[in-house]
Amino acid sequence: MIISCNTNSLNKAIQTVQRAIISKPSTPIFSGIHVIAADNKLEIQAMDLNMAISCTIDAEISESGEIVVSAKHFADLIRKLPAESLTISKNEEKHSIKVSSGKSEYQLFLMNEDDYPKFPTFDADRTIALDDGMIKELIKKTIFSCSTDEARPLFTGILVEAKDGKITFVGTNTHRLAIKSLPYEGNEELSMIIPSKVLGEISRNLTGEVPQQVLISLLNNQIMVVIDNIVIVSRLIEGQFPDYRRVIPPKFALTSKVNIKELAGAVERVALFSTDGDYSIIKMSVAADEITITSSSPDVGTGLEVVSCQTIGDPLNVAFNAKYILDILKNLEAEEAVLSMNTSLSPVCVTCADEPDYTYIVTPVRVVF
Amino acid sequence: MIISCNTNSLNKAIQTVQRAIISKPSTPIFSGIHVIAADNKLEIQAMDLNMAISCTIDAEISESGEIVVSAKHFADLIRKLPAESLTISKNEEKHSIKVSSGKSEYQLFLMNEDDYPKFPTFDADRTIALDDGMIKELIKKTIFSCSTDEARPLFTGILVEAKDGKITFVGTNTHRLAIKSLPYEGNEELSMIIPSKVLGEISRNLTGEVPQQVLISLLNNQIMVVIDNIVIVSRLIEGQFPDYRRVIPPKFALTSKVNIKELAGAVERVALFSTDGDYSIIKMSVAADEITITSSSPDVGTGLEVVSCQTIGDPLNVAFNAKYILDILKNLEAEEAVLSMNTSLSPVCVTCADEPDYTYIVTPVRVVF
Repeated sequence: MIISCNTNSLNKAIQTVQRAIISKPSTPIFSGIHVIAADNKLEIQAMDLNMAISCTIDAEISESGEIVVSAKHFADLIRKLPAESLTISKNEEKHSIKVSSGKSEYQLFLMNEDDYPKFPTFDADRTIALDDGMIKELIKKTIFSCSTDEARPLFTGILVEAKDGKITFVGTNTHRLAIKSLPYEGNEELSMIIPSKVLGEISRNLTGEVPQQVLISLLNNQIMVVIDNIVIVSRLIEGQFPDYRRVIPPKFALTSKVNIKELAGAVERVALFSTDGDYSIIKMSVAADEITITSSSPDVGTGLEVVSCQTIGDPLNVAFNAKYILDILKNLEAEEAVLSMNTSLSPVCVTCADEPDYTYIVTPVRVVF
Repeated sequence: MIISCNTNSLNKAIQTVQRAIISKPSTPIFSGIHVIAADNKLEIQAMDLNMAISCTIDAEISESGEIVVSAKHFADLIRKLPAESLTISKNEEKHSIKVSSGKSEYQLFLMNEDDYPKFPTFDADRTIALDDGMIKELIKKTIFSCSTDEARPLFTGILVEAKDGKITFVGTNTHRLAIKSLPYEGNEELSMIIPSKVLGEISRNLTGEVPQQVLISLLNNQIMVVIDNIVIVSRLIEGQFPDYRRVIPPKFALTSKVNIKELAGAVERVALFSTDGDYSIIKMSVAADEITITSSSPDVGTGLEVVSCQTIGDPLNVAFNAKYILDILKNLEAEEAVLSMNTSLSPVCVTCADEPDYTYIVTPVRVVF
């Protein structure tokens, strides 16, 4: 293999695919990057058991071939090379490559390319196409609600449903749930659970510089995502996602309209006085025209904040994990949010008049008021 | 104690003094911040065994008094309060303070102020005054050469010498040494070793927004630094600092002029191929018009870079810890550096024609070429 290419393009491609490599690869070969040179294209691949990413760039291929090279050292070197272009030539005997760029010359030992699995592309059953801005918003507004607990894989994914002219993303960790829908004109009906890590990679690769389409293809329990020159392949999460429609209470005894910025600031400060690790309980007393937020810690002291609101319904006390309230307030762009509730222990709904297709449900915490 | 003050001023003062508190305070009381209200001033203090910092701000004192409050919680709260001003009132019975600001009301439990040591101010023997820009440069150009190894306290400090019309800062970890001098018009002659942590705090508090004078006062083995409303008190480091003048070779067999940016880039890249923890050995072959920098690692591969230079003297091979070369190259503002050396194992001197009062010495590493 002998190739020449632009240093920056190769660097970007490596950075993109490298994210498929996990910190403790399941087999040593997965700590490598697979580079295939053919037909004036350089395909750069990385993978582990759950996800594979490839990125194809233009290159001048003097001699086609393939290599597998330590991702860490290859990435570090290419990132730091100052010259605009570089040449890579393989030395079969020494089982190494020579990387030349400007006055730099590096020799890198290779891994055995025969050990590297074939990149898992497939002919899809079904394909849907989404605009970049649309999928980015769907991801942003639901991904934070997922669990990161690998012991409950179902909740580390986002339910993606397309039917009846809309596409809906749902994320939950069982204590809170975020549902975001947008109009969707495609004909394909589908329902699948995509690992949140894969959705994170999709978002990351949507730069918004030029309008892009994201193609999502399905075959059995696999998904293939194509964004320009990038291909991401992953397994879907299997299992029965909870019926999110049943979690939304059909009616509420109380609704209260409140300024998002004021509420978020107050919750954040009061939470300082009850933080125990990642967990911080705050109490809210919702009255006709003000919400009083309190917390107390036997060691530190007590906190009390008052925020104006417009409430319809009888006053109610309710307690939350502060983080679950702050997370949704950060994701609402409007000025005012609406909190809807029935009792101190039944699910509370956070919505916003300007964004009727976005619903957040959080389960209160049982405390003594 | 009942006081009102500007939230932002109090926040800045807390951030400033809090840096005297170490992560594991030597006694519990040193995890607190001491606040003294008197004469329309609020003095905020924090300390541990080695360093004490105080900051005085304007406040409206309705009732004088003092408190000691958990630094962490006090700092977090004041930093997050949105209203411009706040009121703190002490409740002697409950042994707490109430912090009120806008619609926020917080109660914080207190520590016992009788346990808090008196702030160690003193009437100085001698005082020197330095301009902010001057002391900042002296610190920046030497502090990186210090050791962070508390087991060898002498080398965690900077030698500060004032005599013969100049002031000199010297930092060393025994493997490398940085010496920076500037003209100094004061009459006081002195020689002391200031802990690098104290110098770091001085730099941090010199914002450069308005010209400031830094007053450094001495009494026995203590130093008191005054920057506007901030006072830093610390012990000096005791012991005999190595005679840095004897470390500088009187003459050199080889001098080589080289572009700093090119050399730094080359060293950084080649070092990728020999990094072992924090330590990375690179070899330099200095010839008449080029320096060849190489490294090799049995697992990774080899690196080679060539940088142009103008050498006077016979070619020489020399090996370094890459970090020790990069550190000085980052601190030189000119385009070209001069490397001066005698043999492969004797101290190498790095200087720069534009900055004759700045000298860096690094000891080579013994390797096989």
